[in-house]
Amino acid sequence: MLTPKGEASKSKLLASAEELFAQKGFHATTVSQIVKNAGLTQAAFYLYFKSKDEILRELLAKFEDQLLPLTDAGRNAAGKTPEELVAYVIHAFTGLFVLLGRNANLTRIALLETESGLSIRDKIVQQICANMVRNQQAGIVRPDVEPELAAESVVASVERLIYRYSATGEKDAAELGRQTAKLFLQGILIRRK
Amino acid sequence: MLTPKGEASKSKLLASAEELFAQKGFHATTVSQIVKNAGLTQAAFYLYFKSKDEILRELLAKFEDQLLPLTDAGRNAAGKTPEELVAYVIHAFTGLFVLLGRNANLTRIALLETESGLSIRDKIVQQICANMVRNQQAGIVRPDVEPELAAESVVASVERLIYRYSATGEKDAAELGRQTAKLFLQGILIRRK
Repeated sequence: MLTPKGEASKSKLLASAEELFAQKGFHATTVSQIVKNAGLTQAAFYLYFKSKDEILRELLAKFEDQLLPLTDAGRNAAGKTPEELVAYVIHAFTGLFVLLGRNANLTRIALLETESGLSIRDKIVQQICANMVRNQQAGIVRPDVEPELAAESVVASVERLIYRYSATGEKDAAELGRQTAKLFLQGILIRRK
Repeated sequence: MLTPKGEASKSKLLASAEELFAQKGFHATTVSQIVKNAGLTQAAFYLYFKSKDEILRELLAKFEDQLLPLTDAGRNAAGKTPEELVAYVIHAFTGLFVLLGRNANLTRIALLETESGLSIRDKIVQQICANMVRNQQAGIVRPDVEPELAAESVVASVERLIYRYSATGEKDAAELGRQTAKLFLQGILIRRK
């Protein structure tokens, strides 16, 4: 158990590492830069973390715990009406854009920083892919969709839209979530009876 | 008019510049590196090009001439049956994946190299967006689709899929074209009567 002061120092180190990893990349960031940017000492760092790797793992684990439930929206599709399903996926995507928009640095690290070897992107793709396979078996998703390719498309789009619209404040999470969910669920063409 | 020998030298310089811009980026590449990599002299370079900027413009102009007709597939949608439209867009996307797959270096420069200020990406997005607006007016595309956002999603997906599948040889252009076209036109959900 950490004291309140210990908790505060640990939080400062996490925030400092997050900022530097996003700015400079994981490999180019050193422990001494992290402590300097946090206004603490090297000794303080090693009270809370064994290494630079460990502080990255802790940052990404926290982010992942928030992220994966949102990208898992397809899991419980079976049994929903088409309208319920669309509303449900819109809700999940909106939550995703809220989370990514609020954590621009972590999003950058998790999606772009592949050199760390801890790619959350791959986990998200595999999760969406598994749900797509499940929903093909349930007769909800078209059987001719290649699940992994579709999952890669969704992740690439979300990544681009965050960078293009959320970072600039041009569109809010609700619009991004609604548009992305409907685009991938229904496509752009008007459905004819 | 260039002599055959002149044409050959110019081609070597273009190929050399394409390779170095893709590897190192536009700004990090120098004219002396381009001529060295081409096995020619600095004097030869300035026979054919005024500057490094000009050789980039010539590379991108050629690529753009091949690219833009393919990404303009939505222009002639009106009057087609839904089946014809899907087949037509699949054909155009397949051509796009063939072209991008064969020109990995130029694709990288055109889509990723924004620092050159000559972004083909922006032109493609604006073109797809304009066609989407036209097709909303024609009653083909859903009126609630945000055209620019959808266009950004398409371009981001194509970019990712080239990198993920075409560069590795895992999927061919025909499959990438068919999957991408159907994904964006029809979405992943089975259409119920």
